[in-house]
Amino acid sequence: MTKIVELRTGILEKNDLLAQGLRQQFAQANVRVSNWVSSPGTGKTALLEALLTVAVSRGVRAAALVGDCATDNDAKRLARSGAPVRQIVTESMCHLESDMIGEHLTGWDLAEVDVLVIENVGNLVCPTAYDLGEDTRVALLSVTEGEDKPAKYPQLFHSADVVVITKTDIANAVEWDRSRAIDAIRSVNPSAPIIETSAKNGTGIDALIDLLSTPSAAGTHPPQLQEAP
Amino acid sequence: MTKIVELRTGILEKNDLLAQGLRQQFAQANVRVSNWVSSPGTGKTALLEALLTVAVSRGVRAAALVGDCATDNDAKRLARSGAPVRQIVTESMCHLESDMIGEHLTGWDLAEVDVLVIENVGNLVCPTAYDLGEDTRVALLSVTEGEDKPAKYPQLFHSADVVVITKTDIANAVEWDRSRAIDAIRSVNPSAPIIETSAKNGTGIDALIDLLSTPSAAGTHPPQLQEAP
Repeated sequence: MTKIVELRTGILEKNDLLAQGLRQQFAQANVRVSNWVSSPGTGKTALLEALLTVAVSRGVRAAALVGDCATDNDAKRLARSGAPVRQIVTESMCHLESDMIGEHLTGWDLAEVDVLVIENVGNLVCPTAYDLGEDTRVALLSVTEGEDKPAKYPQLFHSADVVVITKTDIANAVEWDRSRAIDAIRSVNPSAPIIETSAKNGTGIDALIDLLSTPSAAGTHPPQLQEAP
Repeated sequence: MTKIVELRTGILEKNDLLAQGLRQQFAQANVRVSNWVSSPGTGKTALLEALLTVAVSRGVRAAALVGDCATDNDAKRLARSGAPVRQIVTESMCHLESDMIGEHLTGWDLAEVDVLVIENVGNLVCPTAYDLGEDTRVALLSVTEGEDKPAKYPQLFHSADVVVITKTDIANAVEWDRSRAIDAIRSVNPSAPIIETSAKNGTGIDALIDLLSTPSAAGTHPPQLQEAP
């Protein structure tokens, strides 16, 4: 096991070094970068499509990198917003790493981007360990998932700078217990802003754009939780 | 990269050897074993609680092993069914492996179990590579997730012996496109039974118990898809 742990530590260290380089590159170009992490089916792509569409209409120059194991379905959906979008197909890899971000930025002029959104592979566990050079880590949770997800996947929700609740338009239909969910988030993350959204009726979209595009509003994410509490 | 690939191959080979041993152990004790894999929030635990409760009432001796990164919330919920349940806390690990199954069987008399359900960690990617000695791999998809999930995560749905659709009671509220989902499943898995269920109103529970407890109904899962189609 020692050999595996050492190798894993090496991969993470290499990733972190590349992520530092990306962070400098983003800061120099004045691009605000967010890394969106959630379970598959939380509605990241639907929310992101709504967000990019509103951002473009407000004159915010937004762009997206979208990770998926297979298919470019998500990139096609997002391109409808008019924003530049690129797909990263990870095949059997369950998370994005910094080198994939670096490769897929080739040829893009970052000076022409205000806000870059990175949609990670749908997975609540593995992406948490990989810094992508983002300013803001966004953890998403839909009203159709269990309200105790933050307690069951504490690493992600603890390391999040912003927690986004999605699909609030169907909260009643699925008997969403809002206060129980907020308690679960607060048990692992006492201070991150919580934004309640609906891609369908537009709730929270403007607030989220404001947060992701304002340098002072978001922080760099806190040290990761090493052990489950 | 070669070193990493070799090490990963070694881990998988060791897991597969242990899984073969488990499979023999299960066959000798005449236990039918299923490995449930889905995204977090698909409703595995709610369905499993309903299934265990009905199984117990029908005289089927069912038991469950439940994987989670943190908390024993799920084991507590499942124990209400009256069936024996054990929690496997994986901490930061995103999938179950055979050695964890072996350890958590200690002290259980398999001769007293007809059906063992293993609830994997909520993750559509990583569990796919790890055989746990099961007869039946169950891939679950809820009506609140995108209908194209099977195409986006082909490895899991291709390797599934049974595909279970969950939360059908709210299909209309979330505008579930059933035929599009079935097409997506069939594009990566032409033949696995598809069972539509609701933990809330009991739809499909008896059919699922029949399938999981009948040796002839389920197969051993087909070779895994190595590359995304």
